[in-house]
Amino acid sequence: MSPKITTELLKQLRQVMKSPKYVQEPVQAYIVPSGDAHQSEYIAPCDCRRAFISGFDGSAGTAIITEQHAAMWTDGRYFLQAANQMDNNWTLMKMGLKDTPTQEDWLVSVLPEGSKVGVDPFIIPADQWKRMSKVLRSAGHDLVPIKENLIDTIWTDCPQRPCKPLITLDLNYTGVSWRDKIVALRSKMAERKVLWFVVTALDEVAWLFNLRGSDVEYNPVFFAYAVIGMNTIRLFIDGDRMMDPAVREHLQLDSTLEPEFKIQVMPYGSILTELQAVGASLSPKEKVWLSDKASYALTEAVPKAYQYLTPYTPICIAKAVKNVSETEGMRRAHVKDAVALCELFNWLEKEVPKGTVTEITAADKAEEFRSQQKDFVELSFATISSTGPNGAIIHYKPVPETNRTLSVNEIYLLDSGAQYKDGTTDVTRTMHFGTPSAYEKECFTYVLKGHIAVSAAIFPNGTKGHLLDSFARSALWDCGLDYLHGTGHGVGSFLNVHEGPCGISYKTFADEPLEAGMIVSDEPGYYEDGSFGIRIENVVLVIPAETKYNFKNRGSLTFEPLTLVPIQTKMIDVSLLTQKELNWVNDYHQKCREVIGAELERQGNIRTAWCHCNLRLLGP
Amino acid sequence: MSPKITTELLKQLRQVMKSPKYVQEPVQAYIVPSGDAHQSEYIAPCDCRRAFISGFDGSAGTAIITEQHAAMWTDGRYFLQAANQMDNNWTLMKMGLKDTPTQEDWLVSVLPEGSKVGVDPFIIPADQWKRMSKVLRSAGHDLVPIKENLIDTIWTDCPQRPCKPLITLDLNYTGVSWRDKIVALRSKMAERKVLWFVVTALDEVAWLFNLRGSDVEYNPVFFAYAVIGMNTIRLFIDGDRMMDPAVREHLQLDSTLEPEFKIQVMPYGSILTELQAVGASLSPKEKVWLSDKASYALTEAVPKAYQYLTPYTPICIAKAVKNVSETEGMRRAHVKDAVALCELFNWLEKEVPKGTVTEITAADKAEEFRSQQKDFVELSFATISSTGPNGAIIHYKPVPETNRTLSVNEIYLLDSGAQYKDGTTDVTRTMHFGTPSAYEKECFTYVLKGHIAVSAAIFPNGTKGHLLDSFARSALWDCGLDYLHGTGHGVGSFLNVHEGPCGISYKTFADEPLEAGMIVSDEPGYYEDGSFGIRIENVVLVIPAETKYNFKNRGSLTFEPLTLVPIQTKMIDVSLLTQKELNWVNDYHQKCREVIGAELERQGNIRTAWCHCNLRLLGP
Repeated sequence: MSPKITTELLKQLRQVMKSPKYVQEPVQAYIVPSGDAHQSEYIAPCDCRRAFISGFDGSAGTAIITEQHAAMWTDGRYFLQAANQMDNNWTLMKMGLKDTPTQEDWLVSVLPEGSKVGVDPFIIPADQWKRMSKVLRSAGHDLVPIKENLIDTIWTDCPQRPCKPLITLDLNYTGVSWRDKIVALRSKMAERKVLWFVVTALDEVAWLFNLRGSDVEYNPVFFAYAVIGMNTIRLFIDGDRMMDPAVREHLQLDSTLEPEFKIQVMPYGSILTELQAVGASLSPKEKVWLSDKASYALTEAVPKAYQYLTPYTPICIAKAVKNVSETEGMRRAHVKDAVALCELFNWLEKEVPKGTVTEITAADKAEEFRSQQKDFVELSFATISSTGPNGAIIHYKPVPETNRTLSVNEIYLLDSGAQYKDGTTDVTRTMHFGTPSAYEKECFTYVLKGHIAVSAAIFPNGTKGHLLDSFARSALWDCGLDYLHGTGHGVGSFLNVHEGPCGISYKTFADEPLEAGMIVSDEPGYYEDGSFGIRIENVVLVIPAETKYNFKNRGSLTFEPLTLVPIQTKMIDVSLLTQKELNWVNDYHQKCREVIGAELERQGNIRTAWCHCNLRLLGP
Repeated sequence: MSPKITTELLKQLRQVMKSPKYVQEPVQAYIVPSGDAHQSEYIAPCDCRRAFISGFDGSAGTAIITEQHAAMWTDGRYFLQAANQMDNNWTLMKMGLKDTPTQEDWLVSVLPEGSKVGVDPFIIPADQWKRMSKVLRSAGHDLVPIKENLIDTIWTDCPQRPCKPLITLDLNYTGVSWRDKIVALRSKMAERKVLWFVVTALDEVAWLFNLRGSDVEYNPVFFAYAVIGMNTIRLFIDGDRMMDPAVREHLQLDSTLEPEFKIQVMPYGSILTELQAVGASLSPKEKVWLSDKASYALTEAVPKAYQYLTPYTPICIAKAVKNVSETEGMRRAHVKDAVALCELFNWLEKEVPKGTVTEITAADKAEEFRSQQKDFVELSFATISSTGPNGAIIHYKPVPETNRTLSVNEIYLLDSGAQYKDGTTDVTRTMHFGTPSAYEKECFTYVLKGHIAVSAAIFPNGTKGHLLDSFARSALWDCGLDYLHGTGHGVGSFLNVHEGPCGISYKTFADEPLEAGMIVSDEPGYYEDGSFGIRIENVVLVIPAETKYNFKNRGSLTFEPLTLVPIQTKMIDVSLLTQKELNWVNDYHQKCREVIGAELERQGNIRTAWCHCNLRLLGP
C-alpha cells in the first residue's frame, strides 16, 4: 500500500485556513476529527474528510494541520496502517504510549502566541470542544468554530450524502414498538425533569423508531435526527423515503393518532434552526437533554442554562440491554453465521494447500457463504482477512497492493461479521493450514487462556466491564506479552457492531455496569510485527450466574458465548491449559457440534465436515 | 458504642445557617467535608468538625445538613461504624451502592427552589467545588463560600491547632537534600512553563523540606504551606519551631546562601494574602501551579487565567517513587515491625487461651512491642484490633463499649502499623487461636489467593494499579463473595500511611502508572456481617520483573513484599490452592524465617518461637 501524496492538498488547505472567504480571521491550526455530524465511528464516503486529507482511512483518528505541521492521532490498532498510508508530510501520534502528547498539549507546544484553532462545530463533540477549548484558552489560544467545513472547500469530487430507502422492523425482531419506546423515553425524561430530548446518534434514531437504513456501509442506519418532546415527536430526515407506504404505515403517519404520538417529519438540515427555536422557547428550569458527545453546534443551539448533558443517553442504555426477541434474534443470526464460517473453513482446508486462495478471495468467499443465509443484509464491518505479517496490522483490510496468498506456512486471521435482519455478528478465528510452530502455538494458547478467563469470569452485579480487562491479559503478561487494544465492545442488534455504553477495556472510560441482556465481544489477541497476528473473538451475552454464596443476594453475572464457531485445536498447546480451561474448550466444542451440526444438517449441507471432526482436546 | 445525640447541635447549626452574624444570606444547606485546609485524610482534633456534628469519626465521610435533613456519605469500610455512631437525626448514604445518590443529586432532590448551599472554602477542594457548583447551578441553586466555619461557631470547646516541634531528616534517610528537591521541582516548573508552585498538602511540605512533625496523630506532618518561585522559597509556618537550632541548621536559615535557596519564613495564616499578592503580580502567560485538590479558597486567590491545576503535583509523583535510601529504610522498618509482630503473636498464642486478652490490650501490647524497636516514633494509624463480629467493621477501632475478649472460638483480625524514622509500616494478619471452621478457612483461602494473585502479578511498564484490582477478587467472585473496599493504597516513607498517586482499586480514579520504586499495600479481605472479618495485607515494593519475552523491551514489573510477617497456616485450606500459590506461600515463609529469624536472634530474642515453627505447607 503506497501512501497518499498530500503535499498539494495540504498547501490548498493552508490557503483556505487564511482565506477571508471561509474564515473570519486566519486560523493557525485546523482540526479534522474522525466522525460525522452524528459522531459516528463508521461514516459515509462524503464524511471521510480525514482520509481525504491524509490518506489514513482507519476507523479512528484525528488530524491536525498547522502552518508547519500535519499530525495524526490514532490508537494501537492502527499504528502500522496509518504509517503505511500517510506520506512524510505527516507525523504519527501513537495514542496510549507514554510519551505521546495529547492534541491540546501538542498544539500548545507548536503554535505561535495567541493562535486561533479552527474546527467544524458540527463534527466536534461538545465534550471534546470543551476540553480542548479550555486547555487552548489557558495557553492563550482560541478554539473557533468554522461554519464551512474547510476540507469540503478543497474536496472537489466529494461524493453526495447517501439517502437510501428504509427497512421497517416489526415486533418479532424488536420486541418493543416505537410507541412504547417513546413512552419509556418520556418517563426517563420526566424522572430527570427534562422537557426535550435530542437524538443525535444515528443508531439511536434507528433503534427508537424500529427502522433501519443503509446510508453508511456496514451500519444499518440512515441520516436523521429526532427531537422528542413530552407531547411532540419531530423526525429530521431527507429524501422521499417518507413516501414509502411501508414506512408511512410503520410510523402511522397517515393514521389518526393521539397527538403525542404524531410524528412531524422535517428536513434533515433544519435541525439547527428548529433546536434554536426550542431553546428560545424555554422558561427557567426547563431543560433539553443531549448526549455530551452531541456536536458542539447542536449543543450550543440550546442556551447553556437549559442544557442537560449526560455521557450516555437513556436510549443508549435501553438499546444495550437486549430483550428476549432481540437475544433470540441474535442467537439465530449467530447460528447462521457459524454455518457460513464452517463452510468457509471447510473450503479453506481444501483450497489453501493448492496456493490459489488470497486474503481477498477468502474474504469474498466468506461473504458469499454468509450471503446465502436467510435474512442476510450486508457485512457488519470490512472483513479483516490477513495472513502472515499482515495479521499484525490489527485492523488490516486486504487491498490488491498488499494482498497475500494463504499458505500452509503462515497463520491466517479472519475477523468478520454480518448484519442479518435478526442480528449482528462479529467473530475472529486464527488458524494454520500446515503445522504451526511451537512459538505460534504458545502465543495462541495464551490468547485462548485470556479469552476463556473473560468468558468464564463470574462477577457481582453492578461490575463495570473495564474491571474484567486484565483477566484477558494475565496469561500473556506472565510471559511478557500484551496487545494494544481493548478486549471487548458492545454489539448492536441488527445495528452498529460497535456500540456503547459497555465494553471491556484497559482504558478507563465511563462505561456503564454490565447487566444481564447486554452483549459484548471478548477478543484478546497477540501481534508480532512483521510475523503474524492472533485474535480469538466471540460475541457473548451477559447472563445471571450461579455461585455458591451469591454475593449476599446482590446476584452475579457471567457470559454465554453467542458465537458458536470451532476454535482450531491444532493451534492449542494443551500442556499450557489448566483442567478448567481444557473443560471449557471441550464443552464449547460440544455445543458447537450440537447446535451448528444440527443446523448444517437441517440446511442439507453434507459437504461441511469441519465442525464434525474431532474437536475434543485430551488432557496434557 | 452508643450514637452521639446531635439534636441540640443540629438545632444550633441550623440557627447559625440563618444568622446574619455569620452568613450574608441564609443558607438552606451546609456541607461539612472530611478534611482540613490541606485536604488531609487524617486530621488534628481541631479539624474533626464532621465527627463533632455527627458522631461519626471514620477517616472518610461528608456531612450535609439542610433545614430538614442531615445526611452522611461514606464508603463501604465505614457503613457499620457510621450506622453505629450516628443517632437517628442522620441518614447514612452508602457510597458505591447503585441506588445511593451523589451529594449534588441529593441536594437537588431535597432543596427548595433557588437555595443557597454553604461550605467553608478552605475545607472544600477546588475540583469538588467546581463539580458541585456546576450541578447546583444548573438546578437553580448556588454554592456559596462561608468565610467563618459554621461548625466552629457552635463548637465551644474546640481544641487548639497543634504546633509541635519538628524533626530534621538527614541524607541517610531521605537520599536527596531539600535543595536538590527544589532544583528538581523548578525543572518540572520550567518544563510546564509555570513560575510559581503552591505546596498545600502537608506530606508534600514535609517531604520537600526533609522535615517531619507531629501535629496530626499517626502522620508525621506539621501545619505549613510553601510557595516556591523560580528564585524564591516561602514557608508558611507558625510557632517558635523555626527557632530550633537543628531546624535552622537543616534549612540553612542563618547561612549565606544563593538567593534562590534562601527560605523566607512567614506566618501560617498569611498564605492567602501572600498568594493573592503573587496572583496580582502576574503578567499574561505567567502561571501558578496548584493541585486541583487544593482548597477552593487558595485556588481562587489566583485569577483563573493564571491557574495551572493538575490532579497530581510533581512533588506527589516524585515522593511516590522511593529512592534507594528510602527503600532500604522501608526494608529496615519492616524487619523491625515483623519482629514486634512475631513477639506479639507468640504472646497471643500463650495468653489468649487464658481468656485475659481483649482487643484493647492486644492493640496496646502490639504498640508496646513496636515501641521497643529502634527509631520507633508512633503508630501509623489507629490499630484495628477486632475479634468475631467486630472484624466485619472494616475500619473498627476498639473502644471500651465494644471491647471484646479474644478467645479460641473466634477469628482475630489485627491491622496495624508504625512510623519508624526509617519507614512506615501497615500490615494485617487474621488468625485463629483455636480451630477455625471449614467456612472460615474457605473464605480465608480465597482472600489469600487474591493476595497472592496481586503480589505475584506480572504486568507491563506503564500499567495503572486499578487494572490489577480484579486479580484480588477473582477467587472470591467465583464463589459469590466480594469485599467493599479497594485492594491497595500508596504508602509513604516515614510519612502518611495512605498517599497518592498510585493505588489498586476498582474505583476508577486518575491513578498514575505504577513504576519501580513505588510502594503500595496489597490487602484483599472478606467480611461477614455479624460474624467475622478477614484481611491479609502486605506492603509491597514495585520492582522490575523478568519475563520470557519482556514486552518487546517495554519492560515489566511485579511486586516484592516488604512485609515479612508469617501468615497463619492453620487458616489455609490447602486443597483450594494451586501448586503455584502453594509455592508462593512456602517461599514467602522461608524468607520470613531467614530474615526475621536472623533479626530475632540478633536482638537476642529467644522467647519468640512463633516464626520458627513449621510454616511449610504441604500440597493437597
